[in-house]
Amino acid sequence: MKNSLGTSVILTLAGESHGEMICAILDGLAPGIPVDEGFIARQLGLRRPQGLADTARRESDCFNIVSGVFEGRTTGAPVSILIPNENVQSADYERLRGLPRPSHADYAAHVRYDGFEDWRGGGHFSGRVTAGIVAAGAIALSALKAKGITVGTHILECAGVRDLPFNASDSEALAAEVERISVMEFPVLGDVKEAMEARILEAKADGDSVGGIVQTAVCGLPAGVGEPWFDSLDGVIANAVLSIGGIKGIEFGSGFALAKMRGSEANDAFGVRDRVVVTLTNHSGGINGGLSNGMPLVFDAVVKPTPSISRPQQTVDLRTGDPATLEITGRHDPAIVRRVCVVVSSMVALVLCDQLALRYGTDYLK
Amino acid sequence: MKNSLGTSVILTLAGESHGEMICAILDGLAPGIPVDEGFIARQLGLRRPQGLADTARRESDCFNIVSGVFEGRTTGAPVSILIPNENVQSADYERLRGLPRPSHADYAAHVRYDGFEDWRGGGHFSGRVTAGIVAAGAIALSALKAKGITVGTHILECAGVRDLPFNASDSEALAAEVERISVMEFPVLGDVKEAMEARILEAKADGDSVGGIVQTAVCGLPAGVGEPWFDSLDGVIANAVLSIGGIKGIEFGSGFALAKMRGSEANDAFGVRDRVVVTLTNHSGGINGGLSNGMPLVFDAVVKPTPSISRPQQTVDLRTGDPATLEITGRHDPAIVRRVCVVVSSMVALVLCDQLALRYGTDYLK
Amino acid sequence: MKNSLGTSVILTLAGESHGEMICAILDGLAPGIPVDEGFIARQLGLRRPQGLADTARRESDCFNIVSGVFEGRTTGAPVSILIPNENVQSADYERLRGLPRPSHADYAAHVRYDGFEDWRGGGHFSGRVTAGIVAAGAIALSALKAKGITVGTHILECAGVRDLPFNASDSEALAAEVERISVMEFPVLGDVKEAMEARILEAKADGDSVGGIVQTAVCGLPAGVGEPWFDSLDGVIANAVLSIGGIKGIEFGSGFALAKMRGSEANDAFGVRDRVVVTLTNHSGGINGGLSNGMPLVFDAVVKPTPSISRPQQTVDLRTGDPATLEITGRHDPAIVRRVCVVVSSMVALVLCDQLALRYGTDYLK
Amino acid sequence: MKNSLGTSVILTLAGESHGEMICAILDGLAPGIPVDEGFIARQLGLRRPQGLADTARRESDCFNIVSGVFEGRTTGAPVSILIPNENVQSADYERLRGLPRPSHADYAAHVRYDGFEDWRGGGHFSGRVTAGIVAAGAIALSALKAKGITVGTHILECAGVRDLPFNASDSEALAAEVERISVMEFPVLGDVKEAMEARILEAKADGDSVGGIVQTAVCGLPAGVGEPWFDSLDGVIANAVLSIGGIKGIEFGSGFALAKMRGSEANDAFGVRDRVVVTLTNHSGGINGGLSNGMPLVFDAVVKPTPSISRPQQTVDLRTGDPATLEITGRHDPAIVRRVCVVVSSMVALVLCDQLALRYGTDYLK
Repeated sequence: MKNSLGTSVILTLAGESHGEMICAILDGLAPGIPVDEGFIARQLGLRRPQGLADTARRESDCFNIVSGVFEGRTTGAPVSILIPNENVQSADYERLRGLPRPSHADYAAHVRYDGFEDWRGGGHFSGRVTAGIVAAGAIALSALKAKGITVGTHILECAGVRDLPFNASDSEALAAEVERISVMEFPVLGDVKEAMEARILEAKADGDSVGGIVQTAVCGLPAGVGEPWFDSLDGVIANAVLSIGGIKGIEFGSGFALAKMRGSEANDAFGVRDRVVVTLTNHSGGINGGLSNGMPLVFDAVVKPTPSISRPQQTVDLRTGDPATLEITGRHDPAIVRRVCVVVSSMVALVLCDQLALRYGTDYLK
Repeated sequence: MKNSLGTSVILTLAGESHGEMICAILDGLAPGIPVDEGFIARQLGLRRPQGLADTARRESDCFNIVSGVFEGRTTGAPVSILIPNENVQSADYERLRGLPRPSHADYAAHVRYDGFEDWRGGGHFSGRVTAGIVAAGAIALSALKAKGITVGTHILECAGVRDLPFNASDSEALAAEVERISVMEFPVLGDVKEAMEARILEAKADGDSVGGIVQTAVCGLPAGVGEPWFDSLDGVIANAVLSIGGIKGIEFGSGFALAKMRGSEANDAFGVRDRVVVTLTNHSGGINGGLSNGMPLVFDAVVKPTPSISRPQQTVDLRTGDPATLEITGRHDPAIVRRVCVVVSSMVALVLCDQLALRYGTDYLK
Repeated sequence: MKNSLGTSVILTLAGESHGEMICAILDGLAPGIPVDEGFIARQLGLRRPQGLADTARRESDCFNIVSGVFEGRTTGAPVSILIPNENVQSADYERLRGLPRPSHADYAAHVRYDGFEDWRGGGHFSGRVTAGIVAAGAIALSALKAKGITVGTHILECAGVRDLPFNASDSEALAAEVERISVMEFPVLGDVKEAMEARILEAKADGDSVGGIVQTAVCGLPAGVGEPWFDSLDGVIANAVLSIGGIKGIEFGSGFALAKMRGSEANDAFGVRDRVVVTLTNHSGGINGGLSNGMPLVFDAVVKPTPSISRPQQTVDLRTGDPATLEITGRHDPAIVRRVCVVVSSMVALVLCDQLALRYGTDYLK
Repeated sequence: MKNSLGTSVILTLAGESHGEMICAILDGLAPGIPVDEGFIARQLGLRRPQGLADTARRESDCFNIVSGVFEGRTTGAPVSILIPNENVQSADYERLRGLPRPSHADYAAHVRYDGFEDWRGGGHFSGRVTAGIVAAGAIALSALKAKGITVGTHILECAGVRDLPFNASDSEALAAEVERISVMEFPVLGDVKEAMEARILEAKADGDSVGGIVQTAVCGLPAGVGEPWFDSLDGVIANAVLSIGGIKGIEFGSGFALAKMRGSEANDAFGVRDRVVVTLTNHSGGINGGLSNGMPLVFDAVVKPTPSISRPQQTVDLRTGDPATLEITGRHDPAIVRRVCVVVSSMVALVLCDQLALRYGTDYLK
C-alpha cells in the first residue's frame, strides 16, 4: 500500500525534503514495548551525514513522539514520531524547477503528479524521508532484540573496494559480527574504511559520485516465518528495501552467484547441532520457499551512485520541451552507501515485526 | 497477502503438486477483455516440460474456465481457472517423507505447518502451481497487448553460457526483440541454445543440475505508474517474482553492476525523441523513485540450480532427529531456467494490470 | 478487497448463478483442522431451498475439495471448494435481458460492467454464490467450535411475525439456545414457525414476497478481539454481512432501540461471575470500542423482501431507454430469511477465524 | 486495517484524548486539489463542543498541515494534519484508573493492551480522535464537491424527538436539503432544535445522557461504484461509520422497516427522467448488490446515549477483582448526536474518495 508498509505492524510515512517535518506513524506494535529515546537518537545519528564524505546538509533530527507511548512503553495504539526539518535551503533548488535531474524521480513524479509535486529537494522522494524509517525502525529493532533477534548491515562494497562478507553459515559467529557492526558509524567487517573513504573523496573532487553494495544479516529468526506465494519472506523484504531511494537490486544468500553453480554445490545440506536442525552451508540466505528456515537470513542490496553530481548533465526543460544542460549546486552526498546501512536494517526490522505479529499474534513482541 | 497477489487486479492461487488440480482465481479484470483459450494453451505450452533437458513428468494442462467469462469476454467478475493434475506419481515421494530435501521448502514447511503439510512433490510449494500463474497471466498479457504494452523474458545465462542482453535503451528495437522471444520455446536472443542445452544435459548426466539468469523487458508502459514508498513499481515486481520457486535475486536496469559505476556513468541523461522525453541510456531499467519513467522496464532475476538432484545428499530424519542420507529418484528438471521465463512474464503482466488499474481505474484495460 | 474477505484467514469467492460452478478458496487456516465433509454437507443442506416457501430451483450442492486438505485435515495451504451448478434454467432469464429487475443489482451491474456482465440469474450477484460461503464457513465453524466458540442465527422476525429474542446477557443460557438452533432447518426460538410459513405462502399466493430480521449470537469469544478504529469488530462483521444480497442494515446489541434510551438504562454495569468480569446487561452486544468485551456478541440484520416477484413491475429497457413492464417468471423464493440464517452464521465464523488469527497468530485454531 | 481506512485513498489516525496531539495522515489524494484551511476550520467548528448541551472541554482545534500540500494544493504525497490537544484535565481521570466505565472501551482495552493502554480520557478510543477524521474529511468533502458530489448529515432523532427524514427519492430536492444542513451547527430539517435541546438538558440535569439517530445523504454519486462481494459500498461505509464511538447500528434506505414490507412495496421501480434511468422510490438507499445505482445514497446510524454519566454505576476494580461503585466527575457530553453528524459526513467522504479512486483511477478527483 502506498506510503504504508505492513499488514499487522504498519509504518506510514509522510513528509518532504523541504517541508516542515517528517511524520512516521508506527501502528500495531504489541503493548508494553519499552521505548528508549536514547537508542532512537543513536540510530538517527548513524543515518546523519557527517565528515567530508557526506552531504553538508546537517539536521539535528530532534524527534518528538506524540502518541502511542505512555509511561515509557508502547500502548498498542499507533506511535506517531515527528522529526522537524531544520537545515533547509530551498533556494538551491529554485534553479532546478522544470529541469529533471537524470536518474532522479523528478521526471516520473512530474508525469504522475502533473506538476503539483513538491519538487524542492526531491520532495517526498527525498532520502530525508528515511529519517522516519530509522526512528520507527529503532523501536522495532529494540523489540526484536528483546526476543533474541538481531539485525545488522555493513558496507560489502563501496567505490570498488570490497569488505569481507558475513559468515552466513555460522550463527554464533555471525551474531557477534552483527552486534559489532550495529553501532559502527562506518560499518565494515574488515580494514577497508580508509580505502573506501579515499575513493569517495576522489569521486567528490571530480564532481562525481560512487555506489556500492550493502549486506544485511538477521540472527535468531525462528523457522517458518513468511508465506509460500506472494508476500514470501524474501518478497516482502525486497519490496521494502527496494523502496529506499537508490537501491536497484537485491539478492538472498549466494544470490546471482547461484547462476554459475551446480545443484550439488548450491544445495545446503542439513545437519543437527545441539539438537537443532541446521544447514551446513547457507547459500539459501536463510529462506526456502518463501519461509525462514531457522538459519541466519542474509541478503545484499546494490546502491547506485548518488545521482546528484555537480558535473553538467543533459536534461530537458519540461516547460518548453527543449534540451537543456543542468548543473546541480545544492549540497549532496558523493556516496550514500554508509548512510543506507542503518536504513536497510530499520526497514528489515519493521518487516520482521510485521511478519512475526502475523505468524504469532499481536502480542508476540510484548 | 498470502497466496493472493494484487490490490485491484488480484490473482489467488491454490493447489498442490500431487493434489487434484491447480486453481487460479483472477479477480478485478476490466469487463469486456477477450479471452483467447488458444493463447492460454500456447502459453501453458511454453511452461510445459519437453525434451531431455526437462523433467519427465508430462501434464496436458487441459484447463477449464468456470466463471467470470461470458460469451468469450471477461464479465468483471472473478475468473476461475482450473487445471487438473494428471501425471502424478506420488509413490516417488513416499520414501522422502520426513527427509527434507536440501534447499527445498520441505523443512521450513514442516516447521510452519507442523507436519500437516501435503509433502508429496513439494505440495503447495511445487513449481506445478505456476501453471495457474501462466494461465491467468495469459489473459493479463492479452489485455496489456491490446493497450500496446508487451512483456517478454529470455534466458540471459544458463549453466555459465551467456546470451546477448536486451537493448534496453532503444524502445523500438527492444519491442521487436520482445515480440520475437515471446513465442520461442527456448527464448534466447543470440545463438546460444545448443551450448546451453549441452551443458544442461552434461549436468543431468552427472546427476546434477544448473541455474541461470532470466531477463525480462516491458515495452510501452506509460510513465508515472507505481508508488514512491512501499509498493514501488520495482518493489511489487520483486515481491511477485521472488515468489517463484528458485528465484533468489532481482536487479533492475544495470543492477549490481551499478556498484562499480560512478554517477556520471550511471545517470541516464534526458533527451527528446519525437517530442517525447526519453533517456539516452537506461541504467535505471525504466524506474525512478518507484515510478515508471516511460522507458522500457528491464530486470534480471537469478534462478538457482534445481535443488532436486539424484546425487546422495546429507539431510536429517525429522521423525528421529538423526542425520540421514537422501537419494532423490523422482522425475526432476536438471534446469528450470527455460520454463521460468514464461512464468516471470506472466507474473509481471499480472502486476502491471493491477498497477494500471490502480492508477487509471478498473476499466483501463477494457 | 473485492470478492475476498479477510486479512489472515481469507475467503475468495467466484462463480455465477448460471455458470458452471461456484468456487470458494479459503486461505490462511491453521494446519491440522479436521475437515468433516458430512458437516459441510449438512450446513449446505440448511441453505438449500425446500418446501413450498422457497424457490423451486433445487441444487444437490455436491461439493469437491480439491486442495489444501490432506489426510482429512487442513494443511495450511489454501482450501479450494468447488460446487457445481446443476439445476440451471437460463431460458427463464432470456426474456429479462436488458430489462433490469427493480431492487436487484441488474442496473447497477450493467453500468459497472458495461453490458459484459453475465446477466443470467443475477450472475455473480446471485444468492447462489452464498453456497461457497456456507461450505467454507462450515470449516470455520468447526474450527471455532473446537476452541469453544459457537455461532448461531435464528429468524427474529419474518413477514411481521416476531420470534423470541436471544437471551444476550446470560452466556450459558445463550450457548444452549445457539446449540439448539444451529441444526434447525427453520431456526426459531419460540413457537412461530407455522405463523411465519403461513404468511410467506400468503405472499407467494399474491405473487409477492416478504422480508424479515435475523439475529445472530456468538458465544465463547475472548475479550480484546478487534481494533479500535477501522476494522473494528463490529465494522468487519457489518462489512461481511452487508455483502449478503438483501441485507440492508445491521445493529449490535440493543441497536436502534438505544436511540430512545438514557445512558443510565443503556449502560452495561460490570460485575464478577466465577472470578470473571461480566456485564449484568448486554445492550452493547458484546462489543465496546470495536473490541469484544467477553460477553456474547449479538447482532440483528434486516433482510429486505425478495425483489423477484411475479407481479408486473415498471422498469426501463436498457437497449432503447424506454419505459417497459416486467413480469418475472423464473423460480424464486417468496422469502429468503430462513436461508439467510446459515449464510450469516458462516460469514461471521469466517470473520472470527480471521480476527482470532490476527490477534493470536496463524496457529491459534490448530 | 487497524487505524487506517481505505485502499487507494487512505486515512491513518493516531493520537489520544490526553496525549500531545491528534495526527491524521491522508494518503493517495489526487494531486492539485485545493486545500482550504478556512473550510477545514469551519468543519472542525461543527464538531467542537458548544453551549450547555455539550461537554465543557473546549479545544481550539488549531491544526497544522505539515506535508503533502504545496502552494495551496495537494501534491499527491501524504497529507499530514496535526491537531494539538490543549484543554486536558487528566486529573479528572486519575480516580478512574482500574475502574472501567460501563459501556466504554476501558475494560476491553485493558484486556487487549494488558494494562499498558493510555487510559486517560479513553486514550486512543476517545471521541477526541474524530477531530482528525473531520479535518481530513474536509479535504475529501471539498474534492467531492468539485465533482458535484455532496454529503450531508442531520439529526433524525434525539432523545425521542424526531426530525423530518430526507427526501431520498427526489435527487434535486435532496441536494438542496444537503446543502442547507451542511453548514448548520445543529443540523435538523424541521423545527425540532429547541425540543431536542430541552430534552438533552433535562437528561443532563438528571446526571444522565441521551442517544439518537443521524441520517446521511450523498448526492451526485455515479452509478456502478462499489463491489459485489466484500467491500460492497454499503459494507465499506458501515465499516467506517461503526468505527465511530457510540454508533451501534446502520441501515441503508428504508433499512429495518423493510422487514415489514412486501416486495411489491419495497421494490424501487425504474423510470426515466431527463434521459437518465432513475428509481421512482428509493427504499434501497441508492445501493443494489453492493454498487451505487445512481440514486441518492441514504443511510441512518444509531448513536447510543453517551456512556459517561455522573450517576453512580456498578463496576469492578480491575486491580482487586472486587465490585466497586463508580462516579464519573470529568467533563462529558450529555449527548453527542449533534457532534457526530459532521464526523459521519467526513467519514463517508473519505470512503467515497477511496471508492472513486479505485473505480476511476488516482487522478479522478484532480
